Amino acid sequence: MKKKVIIVGGGFGGLNVAKILGDDESYSVLLLDRRNYHLFQPLLYQVAMAALSPAEIAVPIRAELSKYKNIDVLMANVHSVDLQSRKIITDAGEYDYDVLILACGAKHSYFGHEEWEQFAPGLKTLEQATEIRRRVLMAFELADREKDLELRKQLLTFVIVGGGPTGVELAGAIGEISRYTLSKDFKHITPESARVVLVEAGDRILAAFDPTLSISAARSLETLGVQVWTSSRVTNISSEGIAIGTEFLKSRTVLWAAGVQPSSINKTLGVALDSGGRVLVDVNLNIPGHTEVYVIGDQANAKDKNDQPLPGLSPVAIQQGRYVARTLKALARGKTPQAFHYLDKGIMATIGRKQGILQVGSIKLSGFIAWLGWLFVHIYYLIGFKNRLFVFVQWAWHYMSFGRGARLIVHKEWMSYNNKGE
Amino acid sequence: MKKKVIIVGGGFGGLNVAKILGDDESYSVLLLDRRNYHLFQPLLYQVAMAALSPAEIAVPIRAELSKYKNIDVLMANVHSVDLQSRKIITDAGEYDYDVLILACGAKHSYFGHEEWEQFAPGLKTLEQATEIRRRVLMAFELADREKDLELRKQLLTFVIVGGGPTGVELAGAIGEISRYTLSKDFKHITPESARVVLVEAGDRILAAFDPTLSISAARSLETLGVQVWTSSRVTNISSEGIAIGTEFLKSRTVLWAAGVQPSSINKTLGVALDSGGRVLVDVNLNIPGHTEVYVIGDQANAKDKNDQPLPGLSPVAIQQGRYVARTLKALARGKTPQAFHYLDKGIMATIGRKQGILQVGSIKLSGFIAWLGWLFVHIYYLIGFKNRLFVFVQWAWHYMSFGRGARLIVHKEWMSYNNKGE
Repeated sequence: MKKKVIIVGGGFGGLNVAKILGDDESYSVLLLDRRNYHLFQPLLYQVAMAALSPAEIAVPIRAELSKYKNIDVLMANVHSVDLQSRKIITDAGEYDYDVLILACGAKHSYFGHEEWEQFAPGLKTLEQATEIRRRVLMAFELADREKDLELRKQLLTFVIVGGGPTGVELAGAIGEISRYTLSKDFKHITPESARVVLVEAGDRILAAFDPTLSISAARSLETLGVQVWTSSRVTNISSEGIAIGTEFLKSRTVLWAAGVQPSSINKTLGVALDSGGRVLVDVNLNIPGHTEVYVIGDQANAKDKNDQPLPGLSPVAIQQGRYVARTLKALARGKTPQAFHYLDKGIMATIGRKQGILQVGSIKLSGFIAWLGWLFVHIYYLIGFKNRLFVFVQWAWHYMSFGRGARLIVHKEWMSYNNKGE
Repeated sequence: MKKKVIIVGGGFGGLNVAKILGDDESYSVLLLDRRNYHLFQPLLYQVAMAALSPAEIAVPIRAELSKYKNIDVLMANVHSVDLQSRKIITDAGEYDYDVLILACGAKHSYFGHEEWEQFAPGLKTLEQATEIRRRVLMAFELADREKDLELRKQLLTFVIVGGGPTGVELAGAIGEISRYTLSKDFKHITPESARVVLVEAGDRILAAFDPTLSISAARSLETLGVQVWTSSRVTNISSEGIAIGTEFLKSRTVLWAAGVQPSSINKTLGVALDSGGRVLVDVNLNIPGHTEVYVIGDQANAKDKNDQPLPGLSPVAIQQGRYVARTLKALARGKTPQAFHYLDKGIMATIGRKQGILQVGSIKLSGFIAWLGWLFVHIYYLIGFKNRLFVFVQWAWHYMSFGRGARLIVHKEWMSYNNKGE
């Protein structure tokens, strides 16, 4: 009798668990996700910035797993988990498990100011990426037809909140779009005059990197016309712009890349969470006292060898997913599992089309070589041959042409637009 | 002093007028469209059927025209036209013209039953294509988790209303998706068992073609499992399915490909329209009595040499657009314009991945060769090198792999989903 494994979440963590358990004779697997696709989130900002199309960074989960007889996929929303009776409650009904793997990832955190979201969308989903694309491109369109110079200035001011990798990538891309992609497209405005401000509460951007790399990244951003404001904590966001203490920066396009919080499922578990809401797991990534429940990726607080929480990076989720699957295989063969150890392969970020920073152990790189490294790693890890091929072709093409392949403003409501008639 | 030309609509008609008038010393051109992109509508059904991404059949209008000094582009909605004072009224203000070209195209017509649209979306915009894709893919997802066999059957029943080229292409594609693309993806349903019904009010599908071709197209559809119902007029559509007289066909996914009507702008002109609402234009494509106003494409009723209205096809719009631009150039040089003559290059349609029909004068072709002809012509005419290249790569790829590159269910509301967690 096979043990019933339920995996919640088809991201980097969950998908890697499933693939290794595929065709395993000891387990039957059910993977749930509220999406029908696996998203390659590290490139999501390129969808938001119109360089890639959604389909180029996403693969259908069913297609990825269809070859495994023992894996079933269900598109559903998981509302809560009942650890005692070992079942999950979803909008498609309840499901029992022998082993549960929670890999639901994270969503944006507005630090208790959820009302800011409407004015400053975050970048975690394809819908958000499309919405950000719409807002950025529409700002230029509206500025081009705006007679009032003060309003035009506000329309051409873009603010990105949060100086982490995503914020830096967004700011760099907007700088590039205005300088290169759109520069010849408008008769009434000069897109190059767009103002891009990257706002960071800490004293430097990319705090996860060595200070020297933070500085070279800031310099690269400035060459793209991005103003980098550090030690600047946002105190309010409205349709008019953002407030930093007593200062108010007028802008019609504010993007949020500041904070994340784990899936709200954590609150339903009734177990110990860290201050950020992540589940505190033991060395086997189990919830203490529940050897049948694993929590991985952004949803968990797992400690590294220095007893520090591991960062919310895809390599962590991937390694944890593989660890859990191998642990389950070991247990099925009656072995005792080893503790999880994260192998740090380094961190990297990109600033625009040909600047990057890269840090592996004591090696610190910045500039074009670092960007090539970033490009190689991301194409290599992008799941699925098709995506690898197309993303490469697309990048190669718009690198040569300065074009933005997916520069479409697709509206949210399809019917209202259909009814308007041209 | 250059004459002010206003082009309304960046479709096949309007874009071709603009490109030929580009850098002309006699005219300054303003092209308005409510979109920021030109859409290659003949391939829109492939976006709806998840074979192509929106960006692969669309190009930014600004990018297409940015090299012409005398052409300005404005993204705006045109509400009405004042023929007497020679100005157009838009949501971005009023604009005077010396010459006006109306090329707004058509939207769907529900024959006075607009309430049907929510149950049976049409396929004219990218939003609609994405919505249709969402409905078709979601139907399989919901069927897979549906325990009630009767409901499951309704979820796996797809009805396409309208047996023209679009309806045939949609029906054929859904037949293929269920038979090939999805066949291995589900554990609880066999997608091959999906029922696809093409409903046509007339006595045969593809009425524009020779009857022998209509028959071979119907046979090709049947090999893909599509049931072709002719002489079947829809009398009602609800969330439950469609009514054909006393008969009721239960289906959760109904698509509309039946009728089109010209842009609602026509009603604001106060000139003679045909029964379909199209502007009756003279041999120069002018509104009678208004030599400064041209109406082209789906918005106009222009007669062929047998005094029959020209069909709503892209070649007609393209040729009319080029004709108008050349006429304006001739007038600027003091010449008298020739009458417009449509050069019929034939018509074609495709049924699935390798069946097509093609009719050029007395030549009638069906089968794989006709499909190759269709493929070649569509790739050739697809505007922009990038799109040609990518569409070809994408097609070649999913022709070999039976895959569907863009099989993503992207939801309409981005924020509600963001808030749900994960």
